[in-house]
Amino acid sequence: MSVTAPQGFEAAGVVAGLKSTGKPDVAVVVNRGPRKVGAAVFTSNRSKANPIIWSQEVVKDGVVEAVVLNSGGANCFTGAFGFQTSHLTAEHAADLLGVSAGDVVVCSTGLIGSGDEVFRGKVLAGVEAAVGQLSADGGQAAAEAIMTTDTVAKTVAVTRSGWTIGGMAKGAGMLAPGLATMLVVLTTDAELDAAEAHALLLRATGQTFDRLDSDGCMSTNDQVTLLANGASGIRPDLDEFAAALTELSDELARMLQDDAEGASHAISIEVVHAQDEQDAVEVGRAVARNNLFKAAIFGNDPNWGRVLAAIGTTAAVFDPYDVDVWMNGVRVCTAGGPDRPREEVDLTPRATHVLIDLKAGEAAATIRTNDLTHDYVHENSAYAS
Amino acid sequence: MSVTAPQGFEAAGVVAGLKSTGKPDVAVVVNRGPRKVGAAVFTSNRSKANPIIWSQEVVKDGVVEAVVLNSGGANCFTGAFGFQTSHLTAEHAADLLGVSAGDVVVCSTGLIGSGDEVFRGKVLAGVEAAVGQLSADGGQAAAEAIMTTDTVAKTVAVTRSGWTIGGMAKGAGMLAPGLATMLVVLTTDAELDAAEAHALLLRATGQTFDRLDSDGCMSTNDQVTLLANGASGIRPDLDEFAAALTELSDELARMLQDDAEGASHAISIEVVHAQDEQDAVEVGRAVARNNLFKAAIFGNDPNWGRVLAAIGTTAAVFDPYDVDVWMNGVRVCTAGGPDRPREEVDLTPRATHVLIDLKAGEAAATIRTNDLTHDYVHENSAYAS
Repeated sequence: MSVTAPQGFEAAGVVAGLKSTGKPDVAVVVNRGPRKVGAAVFTSNRSKANPIIWSQEVVKDGVVEAVVLNSGGANCFTGAFGFQTSHLTAEHAADLLGVSAGDVVVCSTGLIGSGDEVFRGKVLAGVEAAVGQLSADGGQAAAEAIMTTDTVAKTVAVTRSGWTIGGMAKGAGMLAPGLATMLVVLTTDAELDAAEAHALLLRATGQTFDRLDSDGCMSTNDQVTLLANGASGIRPDLDEFAAALTELSDELARMLQDDAEGASHAISIEVVHAQDEQDAVEVGRAVARNNLFKAAIFGNDPNWGRVLAAIGTTAAVFDPYDVDVWMNGVRVCTAGGPDRPREEVDLTPRATHVLIDLKAGEAAATIRTNDLTHDYVHENSAYAS
Repeated sequence: MSVTAPQGFEAAGVVAGLKSTGKPDVAVVVNRGPRKVGAAVFTSNRSKANPIIWSQEVVKDGVVEAVVLNSGGANCFTGAFGFQTSHLTAEHAADLLGVSAGDVVVCSTGLIGSGDEVFRGKVLAGVEAAVGQLSADGGQAAAEAIMTTDTVAKTVAVTRSGWTIGGMAKGAGMLAPGLATMLVVLTTDAELDAAEAHALLLRATGQTFDRLDSDGCMSTNDQVTLLANGASGIRPDLDEFAAALTELSDELARMLQDDAEGASHAISIEVVHAQDEQDAVEVGRAVARNNLFKAAIFGNDPNWGRVLAAIGTTAAVFDPYDVDVWMNGVRVCTAGGPDRPREEVDLTPRATHVLIDLKAGEAAATIRTNDLTHDYVHENSAYAS
């Protein structure tokens, strides 16, 4: 499992003292080759953290030797000092690994505005400790070191046709489009060139991580990185590889959704018969971001009126008086009016399914989200303290 | 105070049995002339309730004789039967008042999907009772009859240069752009023609009710109606009237914000030095809708990083590394980095002021919102039950 499942990858996770809890907080993932192909997608937030600004430059040439990740501080809006910290982190890891700093990606997560000299010192020491502990079975330790409010480490792996893909993810709050407060590292020993890796990553994230919208808030630090080393010696069938990468990304996205801060329901909003996929995504996202709908699901209340009110804020093609809404298999609204009684809907299971039939075409999409709970408010009302 | 403050208006509020609490739930406001000028603005939600669909037609000719309002049921997504109910409500009021049904506006608020035969019967009986109790001092009773989760009746009045404007509003949740779950009736005895009334109403609502965004959720039933009868015999100076109408609308918007469901902070987000007003509104709204920011304010946490993360989701002109953020008078972020210590910010007062300096121009705007609290989640998780 995890990022060390494919051949030719090493990882480690160590305690650097960034977290007040004393839990692991610095991870390093190294690609031992033979190829050093890397691709990444980043938050679409215009307010980007220093590690994002650094890493965007690193991946431009399609070569990535290593990924350094830390929890316990986002190093975002920490001024020029903060950008130097990201730069120094990459340089320090590169020196220790004997590679170029320009091939080391840096990822940070934690409180925005935190990243002072103490932070920098701990990160650099953590990198040194982690490089000293790199091993081919360090994937689990790395996954644990990137956890923030996550309650479980999130790792996956799949083997097909002689090649393997592994992955780890962290993220539990601020999950949103153009990604979420998620840090994800995917590794594979399949032979891919940089253009293929980039295209395959975009295809997979577009249908998985980009459709996870836990609380509508877009992070400053999100990054999904794919490393490919060709150590298996096998050129994958690209369609087969794309399907596997998407499946595995979807599995990680599901894990992120299941572990979202304070959530008591994991809600899948499936939009069918949309005129096009963009409409389906827009409608699903509008419902996923509607606080009234989300609070109703928390209260096990099949309040379909709030679904229709949310759809009405979109520009999608639909007739508000010809939409059907199903909740957990019960059609509660037909053609813009009440259908089955609310009492028939059982919303007590954690997994919740809302089906919206727009009757406008043949496209479909599913958005994953969570309910709005007391625990969500509690966890996010004292994050900085 | 209230809608009967100007000359030539009568109102009433009665118990029709729509609310399970037995509180007043049907109101009628009648314009006794001499002029019967009316203008209204409606929710921009594409999923519109039956009373909205009805009332949009009524106001087209600029003539409104009366407004019938009910709480205890939104009559939204109740099928063709529901539209007939709105129509019958107007007809019944018109018959009793000796006017045309096409000049009677109908407003409803309550649960979406509720509006069956029992509802219709109670509304029609309530209209009859209310018309029987119409009086020139019925404004307060009317304001009480439109309350839902409001804790106080919201009324205002102002007299200037021989003419008077009065108003009442209800709304406590689902406050959002393109209006909110708000029903507002404004009355005046100034002499205005229909075009003037419409233009003045748009000008006032655009800067007040449209900038109230309590929870980002747009209602299906919102309506603000202005009635003008010229009973004072005075043609107002239009600039003076516009200023008074805007001031009074702002006061009602402030009352709605102060009474928002479950809120513990009334937050004013003031955006200054924006390139244009549209940018200022977009930035203010993005922050107002950020659940993480709103939860932080609930926890008295001056988490300015979440403000910058929210700004980053907009298309406004700004440099994320050259933005200043103030909270309750303390500059917590300068040029994209930490400034004064968080400890200096006192967020315990209910009135909260966030100042965002975009350093991109000379425009400004203020958006009113609320924090995200346990009580908000609680009130909205069992609304239907």
